[in-house]
Amino acid sequence: MRDVAIIGIGQTPVAEHWEISLRDLAVQAVQAALLDAQIERPQMLFVGNMLSAVLSGQQNLGALVADHAGLRGIEAYKVEAACASGAAAVRAAYLAVAGGACEVALACGVEKMTDGSPDQATAALAGASDAIYEAEHGLSFVAINALLMQRYMHEYGYRHEDFAPFAMVAHQNATTNPYAMFPRAITREQFERARPIATPITLLDSSGIGDGAAAIVLASAELAAHLGGPVVRIAASTAATDAVAVHDRREPLFLQGMHASAQRAYAQAGVAPSDLDFFELHDAFTIMSALSLEACGLAPRGKGVALALDGEITRQGRLPICTLGGLKARGHPVGASGVYQIVETAQQLRGQAGANQLPGCRLGMAQSIGGSGANVITHILERVS
Amino acid sequence: MRDVAIIGIGQTPVAEHWEISLRDLAVQAVQAALLDAQIERPQMLFVGNMLSAVLSGQQNLGALVADHAGLRGIEAYKVEAACASGAAAVRAAYLAVAGGACEVALACGVEKMTDGSPDQATAALAGASDAIYEAEHGLSFVAINALLMQRYMHEYGYRHEDFAPFAMVAHQNATTNPYAMFPRAITREQFERARPIATPITLLDSSGIGDGAAAIVLASAELAAHLGGPVVRIAASTAATDAVAVHDRREPLFLQGMHASAQRAYAQAGVAPSDLDFFELHDAFTIMSALSLEACGLAPRGKGVALALDGEITRQGRLPICTLGGLKARGHPVGASGVYQIVETAQQLRGQAGANQLPGCRLGMAQSIGGSGANVITHILERVS
Repeated sequence: MRDVAIIGIGQTPVAEHWEISLRDLAVQAVQAALLDAQIERPQMLFVGNMLSAVLSGQQNLGALVADHAGLRGIEAYKVEAACASGAAAVRAAYLAVAGGACEVALACGVEKMTDGSPDQATAALAGASDAIYEAEHGLSFVAINALLMQRYMHEYGYRHEDFAPFAMVAHQNATTNPYAMFPRAITREQFERARPIATPITLLDSSGIGDGAAAIVLASAELAAHLGGPVVRIAASTAATDAVAVHDRREPLFLQGMHASAQRAYAQAGVAPSDLDFFELHDAFTIMSALSLEACGLAPRGKGVALALDGEITRQGRLPICTLGGLKARGHPVGASGVYQIVETAQQLRGQAGANQLPGCRLGMAQSIGGSGANVITHILERVS
Repeated sequence: MRDVAIIGIGQTPVAEHWEISLRDLAVQAVQAALLDAQIERPQMLFVGNMLSAVLSGQQNLGALVADHAGLRGIEAYKVEAACASGAAAVRAAYLAVAGGACEVALACGVEKMTDGSPDQATAALAGASDAIYEAEHGLSFVAINALLMQRYMHEYGYRHEDFAPFAMVAHQNATTNPYAMFPRAITREQFERARPIATPITLLDSSGIGDGAAAIVLASAELAAHLGGPVVRIAASTAATDAVAVHDRREPLFLQGMHASAQRAYAQAGVAPSDLDFFELHDAFTIMSALSLEACGLAPRGKGVALALDGEITRQGRLPICTLGGLKARGHPVGASGVYQIVETAQQLRGQAGANQLPGCRLGMAQSIGGSGANVITHILERVS
């Protein structure tokens, strides 16, 4: 397999886009990425999306987005891995280019969650859990995360307010990201007083419901070098799965699929966890941030929260996370988030992160979780030129 | 890209499987294919499915099926391209093996249409059309095909009964396929008297609603040669898209996406249309059989029906189609059908088609259509040993 580089990125603001359709959101991101790459017609398109069949009555997004973006005729599919669908689309595009099926591939993540009511969106999101053994019994997706958080607090002796830094850092970072849905700093007091959603999870532990699309253009490293623009190499692209239902896992508090996905990524990139300059992790809920740091070997078990309490996850810390707001504050249009994370990682490595720029960063990791840990897709990106 | 071969096939009967869950259907097909291939653990799994998010409330089928099939941990996704989802999963698995991402990949198509009512299934199937410009206006998916059939009859001067051979041949071929949902021959009189669904389409122009799963195991041709079992080479794997909405196409009666997909397949395989020994086409409606023969260059425009009337599509004819019953009579569990078609093509080439065996066949084509022509995926398979 040959080396692959990101040669174009595009994104829409995450918001409640009442005035823009699902397809038009995708088209905006795709056209921005193609313009950025100075590419007119990629050979293949992979669309990451989770909810459009349920909330918008629309399937076959590959063909639909290709056509409306002016790319009628190209090979195109939808790829779905629950909340990791966007990252799965990037992974599929990576495989197509790395394996030699095409020179230039496009990955787009899009989600229009406001095409349904919040109740409909909540019901649709439960499709990320086990429909028979979890959702059928009334467990919403938030509730599953609440069970994990409760257990984590019990096992390791944390209080709810100890999770505050995850939300505060994300919101602080979002204040200067023009694409963020919640660009407002929050205080520790606000975090502690936030209203409960599914105890112990409160509103400020949770990512919100929003619409958005992001896209990237991938090319062979050889072609990318010829094009002359900024080049970010995909040093690793990996994936692994786990049981969908939490009760089926050996250790619910240690995400095995994530551990395998991250280990494969470190091996492919030839790096150690400590080499990472930053980590765009999947902070759909604050508990997921803690579990991610631990399963990826960036904090010992039970110490993910401690790392945050020590101030190490800020842009000035040892391991900045969610540097442009993360799922929590940039927003979490589920099937798009995985692509947003990779776009943001590329922004940092290109030196295009504006007020959020991490000086001199060279190596960043982006990771998406489908379900409560069932499908984990990891990308490590490296600045080349 | 390296050569890829099919080393294992598996399928469940297509039926109303009230007693088997979506995941268990998939597991049955996967385990049958792995047993056939004598492979314990493929590295990657691609699941083709269209409707489970809507009808079963279940997403993330990649991880779910992997886990329940005893493959927890492997990389796995769902791939969706409406009614071509199964073929898209095969295409993704092909790309993974051909590109060198893995040695052995598994593709599974599964659909559990009876998890919803027939009305819910009909509404969900409309997701294959353009939700805004077609479905929103009350056009069901059958109605879209009815408009195409009406126009075809008008343009080329056929009567409805001229389409009878497509249904009669499919039903005749299904009588000896133990996996078929409708293994009953039908007469011309039954075809002519069948009740209308959306004029001119009647019940016997249409594939039914059913449940089923099929799976194939792909390996590099090099590995396949070492394994010693029957080897069927993938001579071509191609795809192309078109506008999702019929009104957006230049010539509604000539499927441009299909034409491009087939032309690419002939080029990749280095064959002419006349070299094909048989063609597993996407006969979701009789009109689609006619349009498929024409767009693939197997009949002149307006002559697809004539080919059938001339008796050339039977197992004794010049170009047998739907040799094990096709979507019409084997059944059309939509996200699985594309894999069934490829499994059946492999059965023929391996000489394992039982009473339906085509003597001495060497080259077969399987083609799936997502939507009314929006996404067309073509595979040409060749017997090697």
